[in-house]
Amino acid sequence: MIDIILSGANGRMGQVLQTMISQQSEMQIVAGIDRDVFEADFPTYQTITACQINADVVIDFSHYSAVPAVLDYCADRKLPVVIATTGLTNDIQEQMKSAATQTAVFFSANMSLGINLLAKAIREITPVLEEEFNIEIVEKHHNQKKDAPSGTALLLADAVNDAVQTEKTYVYGRHGNDLENPLSELGIHAVRGGTIPGEHTVIYAGPDEVIELNHLALSRNIFASGAVKAAKYISKKTIGLYDMEKLIDES
Amino acid sequence: MIDIILSGANGRMGQVLQTMISQQSEMQIVAGIDRDVFEADFPTYQTITACQINADVVIDFSHYSAVPAVLDYCADRKLPVVIATTGLTNDIQEQMKSAATQTAVFFSANMSLGINLLAKAIREITPVLEEEFNIEIVEKHHNQKKDAPSGTALLLADAVNDAVQTEKTYVYGRHGNDLENPLSELGIHAVRGGTIPGEHTVIYAGPDEVIELNHLALSRNIFASGAVKAAKYISKKTIGLYDMEKLIDES
Amino acid sequence: MIDIILSGANGRMGQVLQTMISQQSEMQIVAGIDRDVFEADFPTYQTITACQINADVVIDFSHYSAVPAVLDYCADRKLPVVIATTGLTNDIQEQMKSAATQTAVFFSANMSLGINLLAKAIREITPVLEEEFNIEIVEKHHNQKKDAPSGTALLLADAVNDAVQTEKTYVYGRHGNDLENPLSELGIHAVRGGTIPGEHTVIYAGPDEVIELNHLALSRNIFASGAVKAAKYISKKTIGLYDMEKLIDES
Amino acid sequence: MIDIILSGANGRMGQVLQTMISQQSEMQIVAGIDRDVFEADFPTYQTITACQINADVVIDFSHYSAVPAVLDYCADRKLPVVIATTGLTNDIQEQMKSAATQTAVFFSANMSLGINLLAKAIREITPVLEEEFNIEIVEKHHNQKKDAPSGTALLLADAVNDAVQTEKTYVYGRHGNDLENPLSELGIHAVRGGTIPGEHTVIYAGPDEVIELNHLALSRNIFASGAVKAAKYISKKTIGLYDMEKLIDES
Repeated sequence: MIDIILSGANGRMGQVLQTMISQQSEMQIVAGIDRDVFEADFPTYQTITACQINADVVIDFSHYSAVPAVLDYCADRKLPVVIATTGLTNDIQEQMKSAATQTAVFFSANMSLGINLLAKAIREITPVLEEEFNIEIVEKHHNQKKDAPSGTALLLADAVNDAVQTEKTYVYGRHGNDLENPLSELGIHAVRGGTIPGEHTVIYAGPDEVIELNHLALSRNIFASGAVKAAKYISKKTIGLYDMEKLIDES
Repeated sequence: MIDIILSGANGRMGQVLQTMISQQSEMQIVAGIDRDVFEADFPTYQTITACQINADVVIDFSHYSAVPAVLDYCADRKLPVVIATTGLTNDIQEQMKSAATQTAVFFSANMSLGINLLAKAIREITPVLEEEFNIEIVEKHHNQKKDAPSGTALLLADAVNDAVQTEKTYVYGRHGNDLENPLSELGIHAVRGGTIPGEHTVIYAGPDEVIELNHLALSRNIFASGAVKAAKYISKKTIGLYDMEKLIDES
Repeated sequence: MIDIILSGANGRMGQVLQTMISQQSEMQIVAGIDRDVFEADFPTYQTITACQINADVVIDFSHYSAVPAVLDYCADRKLPVVIATTGLTNDIQEQMKSAATQTAVFFSANMSLGINLLAKAIREITPVLEEEFNIEIVEKHHNQKKDAPSGTALLLADAVNDAVQTEKTYVYGRHGNDLENPLSELGIHAVRGGTIPGEHTVIYAGPDEVIELNHLALSRNIFASGAVKAAKYISKKTIGLYDMEKLIDES
Repeated sequence: MIDIILSGANGRMGQVLQTMISQQSEMQIVAGIDRDVFEADFPTYQTITACQINADVVIDFSHYSAVPAVLDYCADRKLPVVIATTGLTNDIQEQMKSAATQTAVFFSANMSLGINLLAKAIREITPVLEEEFNIEIVEKHHNQKKDAPSGTALLLADAVNDAVQTEKTYVYGRHGNDLENPLSELGIHAVRGGTIPGEHTVIYAGPDEVIELNHLALSRNIFASGAVKAAKYISKKTIGLYDMEKLIDES
């Protein structure tokens, strides 16, 4: 049985995690942390430092400002930790690296298993097609999203660029009468509409054939699901920085 | 049996039309016009004015500069004509209208049956969804295409705008950190790659549901195929301007 | 302001409807019916006959066994009613018709606006393509679904068959070495996997072009959303049977 | 410069290969074999044994009955050979293996680069998703195709089954009211219509996310294109059996 301290336990993703973990036979929440007081079947605390419960791993899905205390806590106690919170500052990212010399730290720009598998497929396929195929990305999100393209689209585009010999320039739309799309361009197209949780398509278009790698998120719960997988994986590690790519390679 | 004079008979689309028409039991080519001398099973001429063969309809798939002579010829002889040539000037478009007072003239911005059916579906669906759904278009074409978005994407976008109460502004890509897509926007996204003959998707994204209308061209032969249908249709007409939308409504 | 009595108010869809209606400025729930006792901001009753509250329309999203009492209640009071409950027996369907001589009754085999718009597009497009295009349907649902194909896939297939001159035979998969797909067949393919709420694609494949009409449900809330639209629409009617197709045609 | 003997030079794919190779600066056809007499810019023969021209590699895109003579010829002369002909008997497959002890022999069940890359992605992704995701395949082909599912769909399904721990049973459609799709099933769905050259989609559907790997062939020329790549690759080999998977892994 893996004992989990859940940081950010009463937030939207924290609540999703409570439900998910309760359905797992091999793990349980032994304590929950949230700056707001809340009721639960497990002991709850407003700060992680107040928690003296023994555990095997911490999952943090809170707010970037709460992350430094979580990292300190885990480094001190040699407690493996999954940081699933986004919007981390450079300082916090540096702190993660130094905490990783004391304990095992898991962090991924995108916690979804599916997106990381798409990135893996991109790394395998791209070098073979680089010379003859154009590569483009179309992503679709709900109409309230403020940023375009999505961070995930950029993660996938970067996976392309890491795999090619000649780096591509990102373009974010096309309009004109005298355009070309030399192989040096990678178009990223941001569709916005309705309540779409997120869809990403990587298109390889070559002579008489087109390959498309597509990922559709039906809800944002996939990030919680990724955090659960990460917790299982990292609970067996002692020190070092881990991410979803390593998890996939070892599974 | 419908007797056809084929103008532009030795061009790329003219050759496709020769093959297509030879497979039809109810029509035949009785004369071919092309500025280049060529061999065929039917009499050939370098200008339409040189042709004295009787026919039921003319199909023109030549060059815009050849169209005025074709229109004069057909108007004089009350001969129905399909103008499938693109890139017509405003003057030629005016000439079409005046020829249409003498004979039946068929012209469509896009000769494909499928694209025009998509436009028809857009006109039906859009008014019902206008208030709650975002509408976006993604189009994909080969990497040699110079213009973006495609003329067909604009035709479909215009079909949306003809059907709404509050006209939408076209945007050709999104890039930034503080964007919104109010219902006033219609995003048109031009993907370019490989040898894709043409794919167009109209996306209606609303609360918890997404409708997509998609058209995939497997080759440019669909324009020839549309011209054959148009020739059959217009051979029974006497005067007036006709297009693919009317053909569809009457079939 | 449209005053609504919500029957089945504490069921899964009833709860979704409570949230949706609370976000509408022009309608409100004035009473809720559910066989289980529950708490709400409005008066609640265990049977509709116990409810003496004045209202403009009833929405029923309960269980087929509760529908006869709802229909009697609405017929007596000339109260327009939306029956969104599924699995109705033939007897209940007959009762709907007779209630519709006393008040306005709304019923659709599928309450989603999007699916009904797809059916409308099918009715428009199919007659034009019947002679040259094969028509096939692919549907995708979660892996717990017991029936295949989905009722919605059959609704769409029936929309095809209502629009053609020569009725097609449904086939539910293909396996063999000497097959043909004459235009007389309509293949319906049921993909099952994961938690997919529902996706339906109608494919028209012809010479060198393919049209696809696609509907993706992101959640089952779209049925509640359709019921809300139906309530608005029917609150202005007096007698007769109405469905989503009529609603669309009048909007 | 790679000198090529083209066997089956006047067949449909042979003619496509003639055009393709003429556009390559680093290779040329030095002799063409076809049982029918034909004219070309290079010497032509009706049997390969009649050909005494020196070459670096043979490409065979002929008929299975012509393959044994091609293999004997290449084994005798230590001439690398690409067998792109399909429908090989077991005897011929055995002969390939023994020829491969004398010279380099290239053979793939599917000569398209894209399909083989899809198979590679399947081998990478499947083991990670096996426990939680359903895997299904949808393929689309023209309405003249006699066999269903396509050989390529089976190749992709076999790639799935090679990668899983618990082998899946193929099902070719679903119809009924009490179905389940346990992880032990792999549904393969054959859509037939129009002139579609070939589309294959491998679907991984799991909790709240769906990954689709899609390959669209725009023409059958992709098989010729794969043969050209194979010829370049194998011209540098001496003995052994090679296939598209090895080519990809070494590129």
